[in-house]
Amino acid sequence: MAKKIKARLFVEVPLAAGTALWLGESQAHQLIHTLRSREGDAVSVFNGTDGEWLAHATLIKKKQVQLSVESMRAPQKNAPDIWLVFAPVKNEKIDFMVKRAVELGVSALLPVITRHTIVSRVNMERLYANAIEAAEQCGRMDVPALHEPQTLDRVLGAWSASRMLIHADESGRGLPIHRALATQVRGPAAVLIGPEGGFAGEERRMIALLSATIPVSLGPRILRAETAALAALAHAQAWLGDGDELPCHAAFIAASLPIEGDPATRAG
Amino acid sequence: MAKKIKARLFVEVPLAAGTALWLGESQAHQLIHTLRSREGDAVSVFNGTDGEWLAHATLIKKKQVQLSVESMRAPQKNAPDIWLVFAPVKNEKIDFMVKRAVELGVSALLPVITRHTIVSRVNMERLYANAIEAAEQCGRMDVPALHEPQTLDRVLGAWSASRMLIHADESGRGLPIHRALATQVRGPAAVLIGPEGGFAGEERRMIALLSATIPVSLGPRILRAETAALAALAHAQAWLGDGDELPCHAAFIAASLPIEGDPATRAG
Repeated sequence: MAKKIKARLFVEVPLAAGTALWLGESQAHQLIHTLRSREGDAVSVFNGTDGEWLAHATLIKKKQVQLSVESMRAPQKNAPDIWLVFAPVKNEKIDFMVKRAVELGVSALLPVITRHTIVSRVNMERLYANAIEAAEQCGRMDVPALHEPQTLDRVLGAWSASRMLIHADESGRGLPIHRALATQVRGPAAVLIGPEGGFAGEERRMIALLSATIPVSLGPRILRAETAALAALAHAQAWLGDGDELPCHAAFIAASLPIEGDPATRAG
Repeated sequence: MAKKIKARLFVEVPLAAGTALWLGESQAHQLIHTLRSREGDAVSVFNGTDGEWLAHATLIKKKQVQLSVESMRAPQKNAPDIWLVFAPVKNEKIDFMVKRAVELGVSALLPVITRHTIVSRVNMERLYANAIEAAEQCGRMDVPALHEPQTLDRVLGAWSASRMLIHADESGRGLPIHRALATQVRGPAAVLIGPEGGFAGEERRMIALLSATIPVSLGPRILRAETAALAALAHAQAWLGDGDELPCHAAFIAASLPIEGDPATRAG
């Protein structure tokens, strides 16, 4: 009987053939209630370091699911080294921004407190849950690093000259982002998006003074912070990251790791 | 006394110097209650055809605001001719997608019903309200055309060969979008995003057969429909639209149309 992979799950334990593991409460709930899994069902698991593995549900109780890890489906591959440095926005907006940024392959999320930042507290637990959910769904094998909010001054003060700082500059001083990035060589990068009120003059000077800064323009319209973040990340990932690679489920099909007689099984 | 522009409002009446107009209920509410406007306050108005105008509140009653239109701030300029053709998604997601697409300068929104489309009804009134809100906030002078949902077959059947159809092709057959678009000449275009379940085989063949189709890849990860739409639009607008133009508030400052002695007034 052909079996499909029921779910793709991020787990926080080492993975190897023969590993037995219990899922956390919310993942168990998802498998039992949302996906109506039964013992014997196949799932795909990853932990951010050991690659992607095929596993089976060996025991399903009321609120608990045990998995047995079987074989590696694909070796570990991390998202390119591109950060998103952003002034926090309100809850639903930050949820949306984080999920979309994870899909676009961001490697770290750094909320920064600026002079004009209105939202200064970030629900890190919620941020983490959203990042995991998006990573599970988009097929990447890692979850981006999440940093506690810091002041912009502190983040810029510790900036490494080897990490390109792509500054979405509303003043129009920068080159259009697609022109600026198409001519850059790949390497560690970060997209910097200011708060809705813009950066303060002092902050602008500090950003401009960093040797790694590339000011860019995102076109003629005024973009909301979440739109600016996603547009800039789309360009950055395309030119500096893995935008030249094939869609991963196409790669999955090409690699043809059939799951119990079903070669068309997709991971997501 | 320096006066700031309190709001930027889309109105559906012809605009000329001396025009007097009453705002609709929700815009009046916004001015009176959210922005606490008073008689004499300056606002900016546009209607999609006559350019952007400076106006003043001449009468504020309980639920009504009358404006007097004074002078043109900038001549009419429409967003580039780039459509978004998309399978509808659920309410909050479609809200988000529409607002972000309007900011990214889409000229028309065409919801299409496909074989695997789950959501087939679209709240057009809500779509319109979201499009107007985003247009007011992002500084564009037009609101994109909104089309009632149609079947994909019908939309493709009437496709003009002169409008490039940028197909976000999950199979990985297309060139990476940034490579594909960087070499295209400008002209009418559309971004086509499939439903979460993907296009049916028959639909894929129909899309591929159109001479205007350019299949593109959006990188290795599996993107949600709204993420794919925004990433593809960001690239399309950059290469085929107005991505080379300055941020409009920078342009506004450069054009220096001072409002009552306050040269730093921004439109948004």
